[in-house]
Amino acid sequence: MFGAYLTATREKKPLVHCITNYVTVNDCANILLACGGSPIMADDAAEVEEITAICSALDINIGTLNERTVKSMLLAGRRANQLGHPVLLDPVGVGASHLRTRTAYDLIDGVKFTVIRGNISEIKTIYAGSGTTKGVDADVADAVTDDTVPQAAAFAKTLAARTGAVIAITGAIDIVADGSRAFAIRNGHPKMSRITGTGCMLSAVTCALVAANPGHTLEATAAAVCMMGICGEMAAAASGTGSFRAALIDAMSNLDGAGLDKAEKCEEVK
Amino acid sequence: MFGAYLTATREKKPLVHCITNYVTVNDCANILLACGGSPIMADDAAEVEEITAICSALDINIGTLNERTVKSMLLAGRRANQLGHPVLLDPVGVGASHLRTRTAYDLIDGVKFTVIRGNISEIKTIYAGSGTTKGVDADVADAVTDDTVPQAAAFAKTLAARTGAVIAITGAIDIVADGSRAFAIRNGHPKMSRITGTGCMLSAVTCALVAANPGHTLEATAAAVCMMGICGEMAAAASGTGSFRAALIDAMSNLDGAGLDKAEKCEEVK
Amino acid sequence: MFGAYLTATREKKPLVHCITNYVTVNDCANILLACGGSPIMADDAAEVEEITAICSALDINIGTLNERTVKSMLLAGRRANQLGHPVLLDPVGVGASHLRTRTAYDLIDGVKFTVIRGNISEIKTIYAGSGTTKGVDADVADAVTDDTVPQAAAFAKTLAARTGAVIAITGAIDIVADGSRAFAIRNGHPKMSRITGTGCMLSAVTCALVAANPGHTLEATAAAVCMMGICGEMAAAASGTGSFRAALIDAMSNLDGAGLDKAEKCEEVK
Repeated sequence: MFGAYLTATREKKPLVHCITNYVTVNDCANILLACGGSPIMADDAAEVEEITAICSALDINIGTLNERTVKSMLLAGRRANQLGHPVLLDPVGVGASHLRTRTAYDLIDGVKFTVIRGNISEIKTIYAGSGTTKGVDADVADAVTDDTVPQAAAFAKTLAARTGAVIAITGAIDIVADGSRAFAIRNGHPKMSRITGTGCMLSAVTCALVAANPGHTLEATAAAVCMMGICGEMAAAASGTGSFRAALIDAMSNLDGAGLDKAEKCEEVK
Repeated sequence: MFGAYLTATREKKPLVHCITNYVTVNDCANILLACGGSPIMADDAAEVEEITAICSALDINIGTLNERTVKSMLLAGRRANQLGHPVLLDPVGVGASHLRTRTAYDLIDGVKFTVIRGNISEIKTIYAGSGTTKGVDADVADAVTDDTVPQAAAFAKTLAARTGAVIAITGAIDIVADGSRAFAIRNGHPKMSRITGTGCMLSAVTCALVAANPGHTLEATAAAVCMMGICGEMAAAASGTGSFRAALIDAMSNLDGAGLDKAEKCEEVK
Repeated sequence: MFGAYLTATREKKPLVHCITNYVTVNDCANILLACGGSPIMADDAAEVEEITAICSALDINIGTLNERTVKSMLLAGRRANQLGHPVLLDPVGVGASHLRTRTAYDLIDGVKFTVIRGNISEIKTIYAGSGTTKGVDADVADAVTDDTVPQAAAFAKTLAARTGAVIAITGAIDIVADGSRAFAIRNGHPKMSRITGTGCMLSAVTCALVAANPGHTLEATAAAVCMMGICGEMAAAASGTGSFRAALIDAMSNLDGAGLDKAEKCEEVK
């Protein structure tokens, strides 16, 4: 189903501007290259608008944010909006501090996001600050299980409709939705949570897929989520978590459209 | 002897707030996960007090410090003290510049540390700035050898008594001491000095162990030092230094309490 | 031919001060250790002059530059000049933003560089801003091929004469030149461009080689370029790009003078 989205990414080699945390930045750069994209990391206010202008997508990740980079995120996001480039928000740790929560809300107020990707807790915090129900917790469970898939899909669709962004909630079961449709994805492996950066890497890969497949944001995001999960499955035989990290990037560099078509476990939630 | 400390860490999964350098930050995050802890990296003054409040320990590492992060280190350290959380100082490169030396001394003046971990040169610089003998070099050799273990243990105990912190001096032979007892640890492998970050990783792991074992700071620190050394031994068969780095984290992710009990080489210095 | 330069590096273990981007900084530190050098990363204006003074070479890499670090680059560069230490410029992404271009030109105006290393596009941007032809594009093709080696070598020699720096242009075929001589180097593997950081790593390794071989900057730079390419060849059997990155550092840690002599593919361009 999604193989063609990966193939297009490898053909177009979209350049992705990342304003991202210094913890997982190397992994983000390497997995972008592995999936067929190309990374540029730049976070100074004096250059982010120009850098974003030469790229095809913008990845805003608020892990290890600081006053200086928050300004850059807003500037780059607005410029990407003007240019019609896809912009993804990865609200790492939103809810853990007022700075992170305020920054995420300010970003959503000032920038129109194409995709918002986080875990269920992060996405619920985003929901709480969006629309008119500011401060009210989303009525959705804290983990997506087989039982709660329909509820989580409805929640994601509501937030997608509100924000105009495709919402990707990642966990043991992933949910990807726009305002009218939702997918549940069951690729992945528990070992993915034993290393840092699988979420950040997925966000970077999503930017590449979305940039290479204009007009298909929902499907391209779902493709990226499947791809990351499949890489986790392929890497699971690694002898420990240090090797797992390298094997994950190996898997991404070796995955092709046919492999994705074959291994993806994605179904629409009706 | 120390296996139970690792087992407790894997059960409690302590969240560790790291204000650390951008060189080895990814390794610190991944080895924290590998030993059973969980990392949060955050260094902006506007959020470090809140982030530290939701964690169980604080790791302050002064590598690649800057004016902005030095302020954050002090704020976070004081908040951790108020909350009774363990705080570790890793004085990377102290003595190499006035900024590093002044920062380390300011931190020790402003924050009560639970553990201070460094190599012999760093710890001697810390000693020189502590108590009333400011500026006077410690009367201890520049490397800990079989011959100098008693002298180094006495030195570490003196500094521990002065600062109230457990002192961990790492090298070919490691010394871990509080004001009244000292251990000499002979785990480890020379290859550990051929990659960057083994010291930084050990500091992060120590935070997790100490957080998970309240009331046993001395033993938990010694356990962490043994663990890191054992991982170095397990990784030594790697075919080069790039693989060694991954193998070290693999080893940590595979080590359990029984494995630690069996491989630890730690004896009390009487 | 170049084996002795590597042997000298492993004997002298030169300390290299790196002001470098946070994307590939860990790789730079680890490959420096792998080639026999030793890294110190420090970028705060309050300490860079002191840090550079205790080192044997300075690596200035403008990737992820910001206002704060640009100031530090200038301070450290001038201090290294005063002390007669070799200084390398890696103008990552110069031309992609006014900030990067202006910074690179300001650095070249304010600091006398020993080596400037970049890809052909970066070096052409440097050329455009040097000497009296500011703003005029270099008359050289956009990739170095067998056909364009003589033209590229002449171009590199001109820029070297103008700046007083050895110029290293890296790509499928690498060119290394001073004002009077030029080498073409054919080591390397296409997989090197599928990971981030091979350029940054090469710059760091070049600093170590140049520092350990005073009076032989041209040859030491060419040696470093051969070494990096040979490591790419040795790592090419890796099963994916994540493993390739580790294998590259493995190869560097295992390479010795004899191995370099045997595998180097370097010829002088007459």
